[in-house]
Amino acid sequence: MGKVLIIGAGGVSSVVVHKCAQHPDVFEEIVLASRTKSKCDSIAAQIDRPIETAQVDADNVPELVELIKKVQPDLVLNVALPYQDLHIMDACLETGVNYLDTANYEPEDTAKFEYKWQWDYQDRFKDAGIMALLGSGFDPGVTSVFCTYIQKHHLDEVHTIDIIDVNAGDHGYPFATNFNPEINIREVTARGRYWEKGEWKETDPLSVKHAFEVPENIGTPNIYLMYHEELESLAKHIPHLKRARFWMSFGDSYLKHLEVLGNVGMTRIDEVEFNGQKIIPLQFLKALLPDPATLGPRTVGKTWIGCQVTGLKDGKEKTVTIYNTCDHQECYKEVQSQAISYTTGVPAMIGANLMISKVWSGEGVFNMEQMDPDPFMDLLNTCGLPWKVIDGPVIDLG
Amino acid sequence: MGKVLIIGAGGVSSVVVHKCAQHPDVFEEIVLASRTKSKCDSIAAQIDRPIETAQVDADNVPELVELIKKVQPDLVLNVALPYQDLHIMDACLETGVNYLDTANYEPEDTAKFEYKWQWDYQDRFKDAGIMALLGSGFDPGVTSVFCTYIQKHHLDEVHTIDIIDVNAGDHGYPFATNFNPEINIREVTARGRYWEKGEWKETDPLSVKHAFEVPENIGTPNIYLMYHEELESLAKHIPHLKRARFWMSFGDSYLKHLEVLGNVGMTRIDEVEFNGQKIIPLQFLKALLPDPATLGPRTVGKTWIGCQVTGLKDGKEKTVTIYNTCDHQECYKEVQSQAISYTTGVPAMIGANLMISKVWSGEGVFNMEQMDPDPFMDLLNTCGLPWKVIDGPVIDLG
Repeated sequence: MGKVLIIGAGGVSSVVVHKCAQHPDVFEEIVLASRTKSKCDSIAAQIDRPIETAQVDADNVPELVELIKKVQPDLVLNVALPYQDLHIMDACLETGVNYLDTANYEPEDTAKFEYKWQWDYQDRFKDAGIMALLGSGFDPGVTSVFCTYIQKHHLDEVHTIDIIDVNAGDHGYPFATNFNPEINIREVTARGRYWEKGEWKETDPLSVKHAFEVPENIGTPNIYLMYHEELESLAKHIPHLKRARFWMSFGDSYLKHLEVLGNVGMTRIDEVEFNGQKIIPLQFLKALLPDPATLGPRTVGKTWIGCQVTGLKDGKEKTVTIYNTCDHQECYKEVQSQAISYTTGVPAMIGANLMISKVWSGEGVFNMEQMDPDPFMDLLNTCGLPWKVIDGPVIDLG
Repeated sequence: MGKVLIIGAGGVSSVVVHKCAQHPDVFEEIVLASRTKSKCDSIAAQIDRPIETAQVDADNVPELVELIKKVQPDLVLNVALPYQDLHIMDACLETGVNYLDTANYEPEDTAKFEYKWQWDYQDRFKDAGIMALLGSGFDPGVTSVFCTYIQKHHLDEVHTIDIIDVNAGDHGYPFATNFNPEINIREVTARGRYWEKGEWKETDPLSVKHAFEVPENIGTPNIYLMYHEELESLAKHIPHLKRARFWMSFGDSYLKHLEVLGNVGMTRIDEVEFNGQKIIPLQFLKALLPDPATLGPRTVGKTWIGCQVTGLKDGKEKTVTIYNTCDHQECYKEVQSQAISYTTGVPAMIGANLMISKVWSGEGVFNMEQMDPDPFMDLLNTCGLPWKVIDGPVIDLG
């Protein structure tokens, strides 16, 4: 049916390539490109279908344009770094090709997560007659689709949304980050933020927490209120919404490590003079920590990501919870990646699938809440991320 | 009376220069040398007596010899790095000049504290007719003199010694080390070791601890069993000794930081490849942490260092405790250094004082336990480190 050009060759990319390869009817041709071609080649070597690979610097728009013109894909699927989103969007505009990503753009020198920069492309994508789908991962991504699915089938009005992201996995290291530690640490040390009654409210980093007995005996972690990018698009796109919050689980040991590393300056992102060289402490820390790519084989346990949604049904207050659980070892068996990469990569493939098959289409820049949830929800069930809906809350979050 | 050549220009050196300058009858001339002459000059500028300064690389024996020949001191007082002890001893041998240091030699590439290397100089110093006094700081140094003083005046036989080193000071930083962090961290992460019934027993690092209510309301820290170098010389020089242990206080937060830094590899002393450069993580950490020299003005609280000694007096078992307390802010007012540097620097000056005035003399290599404690104890009282003896124990250490 179509051809996809995947840019980026990290942990999520590997899952995307595996999962696209499982759907040859939609993804007839797959091209994989990144700054380091050898990384593409080693992903391609895991797949029993031919995958074309290429070298490209995703910060270099002319290089991207040249590659897109040569490959002629139906869709560019961006799983490079969030810093690079705008360059790839520019290249798609110049070549008239549809675009999809899994995480919103952030400038490299701040820890600011905002859709502003990408929403500013709305008119240009519309004028070019092409579609950009933003944030088609799990969170953001599936979490938004979960909410619109509840809105469509279970409630008449959605009033509050609590997104809860639990990773109850254990990699056996005293400290390691599940994806790029630079981005991970910047996210966690940011101030908490949630949306209520039309405005944003801030909290000190990790200052609001609840103990959570996760369904299906997955664990009993503390979950912490933090900002996450889908809150911004949910607030914009869900009518009647009164409050939207995001919660993530962190172990005590993980937080202890983070606190100490912050205290001694190891999470600093400015340059430090050392032996006549300029060194960014967080990048040196990253070099010391286990490579996230090596965590896959040794991570056991499950993830649980869900939305607890309240609202009105037939004039009565009602709470509905919808969630997915995912087992690290089963993911690894299937695609040689743990569940963190798996839960992001599968929804990216599904979004791309729906765009290439024209089930989801449009002109302009779209968030996940703007699309019909049903075909996406069906594919989640058949592509490795089955979900459940239960009546009532799973936790009292006040 | 004499001339001292002080080598090294760190925190302890600054105290030594201040205190030597207070005794012009003994230290008629003071010469201060280190790798960085400007450091010597800024110490000299704090003193209202003329202090001569010089540049010398303490790793370079011919350079040291040349300097000693030029200066013609009565004593070389070594407060450089422990790695450099042997080079300075070599230079003293070649020039026939007496030697004193405050910490035993350790090879730079291991965390091994042993007197072996310096005791091996015994015959050469004897043959040259000169004296080396090893470890004339507080611990080692005063702690050994405390024990021989108790042995001389309060007990007929010393059976057990527990040295307790408490720093109840607060510098207001989440984490900082009180002296060279490289040496500090290597010491603390080493396995614990104590001497009992003629042999050394090992413990896991920081695995044995007691809560200690420090006399004079100084604090209630946990103290941890660890190895310290004076245990080796006490075991050799105190007859009848059955057990010798060393305990140091650490705050929970300090240990938490140390644990995490160890977990992520920041205390490693091997080289790590980063951006094409070889970097020793512990040295990079040192560059991030507050400079110990800047802690002085902001450190409040006191130190308490003492020896709890048991033995026989007139055929009966008896326990005697002897200790000094020292106030960080008062030290800073007097010599612009906090108590950690002060308690090491003052005993170095006293040892030098006794050697130059020939109250302490000898040919060969000597530890503090081999000298008459009385003149040293008198000078402690008059030079800023007064001590107290009390009957009975201050803590039950099992």
